[in-house]
Amino acid sequence: MTSSLPIRFLFDYVSPYAYIAWTQVHAMAERHGRAVEPVPILFAALLAAHGHKGPAEIPPKRIYIFKNVARQAHRLSLPLVPPPAHPFNPLLALRASSLPMETATRRRWIDRLYAATWAGGPGVEDPAVVARLAGELGLDGDAVVAAARSDEAKARLRAQTDEAVRAGVFGVPTILVGDELFWGYDAFPDVEQYLRGEDPIDLAGLARWANLPATARREGA
Amino acid sequence: MTSSLPIRFLFDYVSPYAYIAWTQVHAMAERHGRAVEPVPILFAALLAAHGHKGPAEIPPKRIYIFKNVARQAHRLSLPLVPPPAHPFNPLLALRASSLPMETATRRRWIDRLYAATWAGGPGVEDPAVVARLAGELGLDGDAVVAAARSDEAKARLRAQTDEAVRAGVFGVPTILVGDELFWGYDAFPDVEQYLRGEDPIDLAGLARWANLPATARREGA
Repeated sequence: MTSSLPIRFLFDYVSPYAYIAWTQVHAMAERHGRAVEPVPILFAALLAAHGHKGPAEIPPKRIYIFKNVARQAHRLSLPLVPPPAHPFNPLLALRASSLPMETATRRRWIDRLYAATWAGGPGVEDPAVVARLAGELGLDGDAVVAAARSDEAKARLRAQTDEAVRAGVFGVPTILVGDELFWGYDAFPDVEQYLRGEDPIDLAGLARWANLPATARREGA
Repeated sequence: MTSSLPIRFLFDYVSPYAYIAWTQVHAMAERHGRAVEPVPILFAALLAAHGHKGPAEIPPKRIYIFKNVARQAHRLSLPLVPPPAHPFNPLLALRASSLPMETATRRRWIDRLYAATWAGGPGVEDPAVVARLAGELGLDGDAVVAAARSDEAKARLRAQTDEAVRAGVFGVPTILVGDELFWGYDAFPDVEQYLRGEDPIDLAGLARWANLPATARREGA
């Protein structure tokens, strides 16, 4: 039943975990004969929707995440260089990544924007940089930036983010296969198990978990 | 320099990830000739210290975590059954686990309290149950519960938790080897790499990351 569903890859350029996952998701999809459908979303809006904090907003977690990501990148022999600023405003890059374009072009475009962010590039906040990167890909850079700033492009990113919140997405990267949600690069083995039809989740047991009473609640929570 | 340091294992019974990690940490420590020093801490106090939410406090994350934990337990062939209630109040169990006792006894005691929580047992909130479990281990159950309710035991758990916050701990399970912090069962490969003296962290690069400017900040964050 799920054998023809694409792997929807929900991401924001601010997340180095999403960068790592993006570099690995295509090979994973090919192993299972699936298409990858990238879906740019605004991570900050997920945090706002859930009243949650991002890792960069908890000082010791911020440092730990840097180390953890560096260790993962080293294991995968991936370049990982911090962008000029972090957190940064990813809106232009996310909107530019959501414009109508060919599937193969979008993949190369996202590759390039990720490299500009996490592989030693100039970041993706400056419209002139984004235009130049698009031009290097053979696109009309000024037209891409103008289109990314249109009301239509803003509405598209907002709709993608709202739909993600409705689907229960709470972090990036998230992979959706139909309605089934997987969070983080760490969950790739779970995605593959699911795609093989070997997910061990016991739905009756899960329903019991979901309905467990709570006998403790934090003050103010 | 770090070759004689124990593996400090910081945990709270409310976390099923800490349960999974507890079942694996001893074999990992043995592979590296290290002792395991369990340190009970109150997860809710970490959340309060960082103004953060726990996974159980974000409804779609709560469901996802259940599934993710079930998949990990299945992969490790571990029993995993939800406790009678969740979240629950872990204070009595945490204080009882922090009482002075022999190392080997403490390990079996924590094993038993974890099994009562996550492997189909009656939970660990009821003092009569905690006393019975202690009795099955050959301890004086009523004396254990009385000691766990003493001001000294309360102060000990509070001190362990406060020290964890000062050390930058933000979640459970956390492993500390000296000052080096590793978060979650997912980080075990990183711990092993560190114990082998092969941690790839570039401290100069890390300092640069730690001092990156932010060019975006969420409203209210």
